[in-house]
Amino acid sequence: MVLAADFKLGILGAGQLARMSALQAYRFGIQIAVYTGSSSPTPSEPTSFVTPLSVDGAFDDIPSLTSFARSCNLITLENEFIDASILEQVQADSGTPICPSPGTFALIGDKKSEKECFERAGIPVSSWTLLPDAVKARQFGETHGYPFVIKSSKGGYDGYGNATVHNADQAAEAWARLGGSAGRDVIAEAFVSFRMELAVQVARNHTGTVVYPCCESIQEGHICKTIIAPARIRPELRKQAEEMALAAVEAIDGIGLFAFEFFLTQDDRIILNESAPRPHNSGHYTIEGSVSSQFENHIRAVLGLPLGSTELRRNAAVMVNLLGKRNHPAVAEQIEAILRSKDAHLHLYGKLQSKLGRKMGHITVLGDDVDQTVARALHLADHIHL
Amino acid sequence: MVLAADFKLGILGAGQLARMSALQAYRFGIQIAVYTGSSSPTPSEPTSFVTPLSVDGAFDDIPSLTSFARSCNLITLENEFIDASILEQVQADSGTPICPSPGTFALIGDKKSEKECFERAGIPVSSWTLLPDAVKARQFGETHGYPFVIKSSKGGYDGYGNATVHNADQAAEAWARLGGSAGRDVIAEAFVSFRMELAVQVARNHTGTVVYPCCESIQEGHICKTIIAPARIRPELRKQAEEMALAAVEAIDGIGLFAFEFFLTQDDRIILNESAPRPHNSGHYTIEGSVSSQFENHIRAVLGLPLGSTELRRNAAVMVNLLGKRNHPAVAEQIEAILRSKDAHLHLYGKLQSKLGRKMGHITVLGDDVDQTVARALHLADHIHL
Repeated sequence: MVLAADFKLGILGAGQLARMSALQAYRFGIQIAVYTGSSSPTPSEPTSFVTPLSVDGAFDDIPSLTSFARSCNLITLENEFIDASILEQVQADSGTPICPSPGTFALIGDKKSEKECFERAGIPVSSWTLLPDAVKARQFGETHGYPFVIKSSKGGYDGYGNATVHNADQAAEAWARLGGSAGRDVIAEAFVSFRMELAVQVARNHTGTVVYPCCESIQEGHICKTIIAPARIRPELRKQAEEMALAAVEAIDGIGLFAFEFFLTQDDRIILNESAPRPHNSGHYTIEGSVSSQFENHIRAVLGLPLGSTELRRNAAVMVNLLGKRNHPAVAEQIEAILRSKDAHLHLYGKLQSKLGRKMGHITVLGDDVDQTVARALHLADHIHL
Repeated sequence: MVLAADFKLGILGAGQLARMSALQAYRFGIQIAVYTGSSSPTPSEPTSFVTPLSVDGAFDDIPSLTSFARSCNLITLENEFIDASILEQVQADSGTPICPSPGTFALIGDKKSEKECFERAGIPVSSWTLLPDAVKARQFGETHGYPFVIKSSKGGYDGYGNATVHNADQAAEAWARLGGSAGRDVIAEAFVSFRMELAVQVARNHTGTVVYPCCESIQEGHICKTIIAPARIRPELRKQAEEMALAAVEAIDGIGLFAFEFFLTQDDRIILNESAPRPHNSGHYTIEGSVSSQFENHIRAVLGLPLGSTELRRNAAVMVNLLGKRNHPAVAEQIEAILRSKDAHLHLYGKLQSKLGRKMGHITVLGDDVDQTVARALHLADHIHL
């Protein structure tokens, strides 16, 4: 078990998740190279500004990916936009290991196989079906009721690639628009009437597995807005979600850092909603909130190092995303209140352009009382103009 | 008060201090450029590996420094190896502000003016005198006793540029070797019989001043080896050192992050020993140990932002330097124990070559009991082979 200063960890993707992983990796004295995925919906600025080793290339350009992989000792990813079959080939051609493995990506690379995998492992997921044609899309609502959700099996994130439909015509339209008419897999998911969304991060490698406390996720327009750790529910329910996350990471034989999102239904059942094979917005609070952050455990996990403690530093940690409020060169204004507030931490991702709704940064506030900390965090975040 | 994503903070120097400041600056979404100071005794690797904006150049090359400054919005420094007069000229020629100011560097840029400045402010320093010739060097010991210390007035660090002398011949020899025979200022300092060395970090700008708790510094061969926060002395003595640090930063009108090192004498007097106009090895423990680290407050101070809380996260924080144990490409071995130890944090600086005694990284261990934490930290650090 060693850390060498000439070790190069390559990250596929160069957005804020890669950036925050890189900043942690630097504490371990290794080098970071990024592959920007020029076709990617995430911008390259956040990470291109923090390393001299940045390669532009598309996520489906196998020769370019392979050449990048050859220049690195190990490859990890900040997103799930690359086909498992491409990862498999890049790993074989370059001889550089990819972690999490292409096998794990094959299991969760699209929503259909992900659902099947978790169902096999006995983990509750919402009722769903593959929609081979528009007729089936029209029929799903009759059985499962409206509204329901139609999703591209591949490539969706933050609400893109998803549609909530309220009648049969909308269902047929969404099916076509989300790839059905182009021959791509589209699924229908029954709407879960939930009282809360939960998230749990897990790190796992051959040295062991660690799980972060179950946190509460508040979304606005399908985008994560606020994370509250720990979730304001009975400890047994948190425990149940954490155990489900541990079962889920086993089911996909995940090596790395994984995030699992759950619905807590009105009658207190916990249903796995989505999984992410990477650090996740729901875990940003761990940078200051936990003894070892999700980014640190991402790096530790893929490097094969023992994993760090996931214990909370204080009773409560609350993260609020800073979304762009205008289309404008990125300038964070009215930051005085957060900078003056004790144990309140400002993170900006270095994106050059602010756009309405774009994730530009986040704040994390630690405190002794959960509700008070939530109120303080929301107040401080509201204040900031970006 | 704003943070803009296209803001470029230039750092003169590219060693581990610049690296750790850069990693903090990145959390605020700004860009970092480094000027390596190719003639510098610190290597450029630590920071050149964490930014695409790295310029090679010597610290006395005014056109090169000026051109670098012009490409940045603000300049700060990681060391005190540049003449204040050069900084003054670079600031004037480039139009880019330098922070801390050339004026502050002029006051503490050499040991003679530093001593005079602090004496004027009523801060106790050890007995000293300028040595215009070898005869005066021979005489100092007769008045102040042996051993005493001879220092180059400029450019010393970590024991370089210093000599402890035990008789008149050694004094004359050291005076010549440390620059006296080349016409440079050399001073003599009476040896202080201390029972402990202390250090205090202070951040200051127009928004206010914050001071970190007085910590204990254990040196080996003039190199800082272990830092214990808080220092294991009576709270009144810590308070006294902290107040002296606050007076010292006022005396030099310091804007930025400053570290002050003190002797605690056998009879509990506190004497200012050295000052550093930058983050300092004695403050590395603040990365995990404090709510806001010295690096964060360095960045906040020079950007003119409100300063962060210097409160300790737990009762005790202990930092141990990891010095090279061999001449070899840098590979940290036997790191399993520290990685498995809770709230113990490993930092490696990315230097490619380990050399005997070279600062390669550090560890910080947090705990509830100071003595136990010291024992745990020393044990964990000893284990690591680098």
